[in-house]
Amino acid sequence: MKTHIGVLGPNTTTEEQNQLGRKIGRYIAESGALLFCGGLGGMMRAAAEGAKAAGGQTVGILPGIDKSDANEYIDIPIPTDLGAYRNALLVRSCDAVIAVHGAYGTLSEIAFALRLNIPVVGINTWEVCRDGAPDPDIHVAHTAEEAVALAMQLAQSQ
Amino acid sequence: MKTHIGVLGPNTTTEEQNQLGRKIGRYIAESGALLFCGGLGGMMRAAAEGAKAAGGQTVGILPGIDKSDANEYIDIPIPTDLGAYRNALLVRSCDAVIAVHGAYGTLSEIAFALRLNIPVVGINTWEVCRDGAPDPDIHVAHTAEEAVALAMQLAQSQ
Amino acid sequence: MKTHIGVLGPNTTTEEQNQLGRKIGRYIAESGALLFCGGLGGMMRAAAEGAKAAGGQTVGILPGIDKSDANEYIDIPIPTDLGAYRNALLVRSCDAVIAVHGAYGTLSEIAFALRLNIPVVGINTWEVCRDGAPDPDIHVAHTAEEAVALAMQLAQSQ
Amino acid sequence: MKTHIGVLGPNTTTEEQNQLGRKIGRYIAESGALLFCGGLGGMMRAAAEGAKAAGGQTVGILPGIDKSDANEYIDIPIPTDLGAYRNALLVRSCDAVIAVHGAYGTLSEIAFALRLNIPVVGINTWEVCRDGAPDPDIHVAHTAEEAVALAMQLAQSQ
Repeated sequence: MKTHIGVLGPNTTTEEQNQLGRKIGRYIAESGALLFCGGLGGMMRAAAEGAKAAGGQTVGILPGIDKSDANEYIDIPIPTDLGAYRNALLVRSCDAVIAVHGAYGTLSEIAFALRLNIPVVGINTWEVCRDGAPDPDIHVAHTAEEAVALAMQLAQSQ
Repeated sequence: MKTHIGVLGPNTTTEEQNQLGRKIGRYIAESGALLFCGGLGGMMRAAAEGAKAAGGQTVGILPGIDKSDANEYIDIPIPTDLGAYRNALLVRSCDAVIAVHGAYGTLSEIAFALRLNIPVVGINTWEVCRDGAPDPDIHVAHTAEEAVALAMQLAQSQ
Repeated sequence: MKTHIGVLGPNTTTEEQNQLGRKIGRYIAESGALLFCGGLGGMMRAAAEGAKAAGGQTVGILPGIDKSDANEYIDIPIPTDLGAYRNALLVRSCDAVIAVHGAYGTLSEIAFALRLNIPVVGINTWEVCRDGAPDPDIHVAHTAEEAVALAMQLAQSQ
Repeated sequence: MKTHIGVLGPNTTTEEQNQLGRKIGRYIAESGALLFCGGLGGMMRAAAEGAKAAGGQTVGILPGIDKSDANEYIDIPIPTDLGAYRNALLVRSCDAVIAVHGAYGTLSEIAFALRLNIPVVGINTWEVCRDGAPDPDIHVAHTAEEAVALAMQLAQSQ
C-alpha cells in the first residue's frame, strides 16, 4: 500500500517557490508515494507537476463541486463541496504532510495535522509557539530532498 | 478528464450479486471511467475487482482512518474518518452513480444523489415513492451493461 | 436532558401544510422537547412558529454561513456552511425525527436517519420500498398529535 | 439576533484557569451574547458555568453522538459525530472566538478561525508566526473583561 504524502502550500507562488514545489513533487514520486494536495494552483500545481514528470500519481482534494477546478497535473480530482472543511479532509487522507510557505489555509492544515497526530514537515512556513517556544512537532526541513526524506520516514514510523 | 462513476451497494453479498458487481466494474473500466465506491467489502469489492481485471482504476472513499480497511482492488483509498457522512462525500465525488441492491447506507446514497441532482441508475435496489408513484429520477436498469451505458450517458449529459 | 425532535419538510408550503407544521411544533414544545429543523422557510418555519407559540425552544441547523438566514422563530441558529451535508448533521443531532411532505432534501434526511438508526415518523411523506414492500422503519402517522406522541415514545425507547 | 461568542480551550484545566474561564463566561452572558464551546470539560465547562451563573445560554458542539457527553452547564448540546472536524464547525458557528490556553485542538480552532476570517482573541494561548513575526490577527487580551469586550467589538464590526 502506497504512502500518502500531502503537500500544503499557497494558491499563488513565485517562480522560485514553484521550483521548490516541483522538486518536492518529484522526490515524492521517486519515493513511490502518492501525492495528495488541495488540487488548485500555486504550490499545489507545482508539486503535482513535479510528481507527474517523475511518473508519479496525484490526488487533488478540491473545495468545490467541479472536477475541472483541478490543475492539469491532478490524476484523481475529488470534488468535495466541503469549502474550508476540505483542508481538514486533505490532511486526514495523508500519512504525513509537507507544508511549504502558505497562508491561513496552510496554517489550518498544519494545525489540523498536529491535532490528528499526523507528522508535519515544514519549509519556510508557519511557526506555532507556546510560551515563546516553537512547537517541536513541526519538523523543520531546508531543502526539498530533506523534506521528503523526513516525511517518508515519519510516515512509515507511524 | 475521466468520468467518475460510483457503485453503491451492500457490504455483504451473494456470489450472484458479486458476479453482477464484477460485470458493472468491468464495463465502467471499459468505458474509460474511474470507479468510485465506499472501498469496503461486498458489492464495493466486487465492482472494484471487475474494474481492475479490465485495466481500470478504483477509488475508495472509506468511513474510517485506516487505509488498510480498503479492499485489495482499491488503487486510491481515501480514509475520511467521516463515518456515515462519507456516504454523502462519495456521492458528491461522482458524475453518476449505480445503486445495486443495498441497505440503508445505499438508500442514503441514492437520496443524497437525488438531492444533489447527480444521476442515479438502480438495479434491484430501493424504490422511493411519493403519493404511491415511484420517483422517476431513479433510472431502472436490468443488466450490468445497461446500467453502465445509462450511467455514462447521464453523466455526460450533465 | 431534553429530547431533541427534528421536523423535516419542504422549504415552500401551502397554508394547510403550515397549519399541520404549527401543530407539530406546538406538541413538541408541550412535550418538553427541543425542536430541531433546517432553520429556513416553509415547514421549518411553521414548526418553529408553533413551538415558540407554546413556549418551546428551537434550533436551526442552517446550510449557509449567515445566521440571519434563519426564520424569525429560530432561537439558536447554527450556520454550518455545510451545504447539503447539513441535512445529515441535522438528523444526527436529533433523538427522533418527523418528516412531513418534503422533496429530495427531506428524503435524504429520512434515509440518513434510517442509516443512523434514528427513529423516523412520517406524515404524507416519502415511502421507501424494497422488493415492493414499504420499509417498516418509517412509522406512519396521520395527525400532528399522533406524530409527536410516536416520535417522543420512539426517542425515549432508544 | 444574538452574537455568538465561542470559547476555545483545553479539556483539562487548573483551578486558576477555571476562574478565568468562569469570568469569561460571565462577561459573555452579561454582554447578551450566546456562548458556544466544544461542550466537554476543562475550559469549556468553566466558561459554560460562568455564563449560566449570569443567566446566559450555552451551546456545546460535541464531537460524539451522545448528548450526555456535554457538561452540566450546556443548554443546547449538538452531538455531531464529526470527531475532530467538529472543531471547524464550532468556529464556523461563531461571530468571534476567545482562545484561552489550549493544546492542538485549540490551535486548530484558532487556525480555522483565521482561515474563515472570524475574529480571534487570545489569552495565554498559541502564537502563530511567519518570518519570525507573530500574526497580528490573534488579538491579545490579558484579562477576561478585556477579552470579552474585544471579542464583542470585533464580532459586531464584521
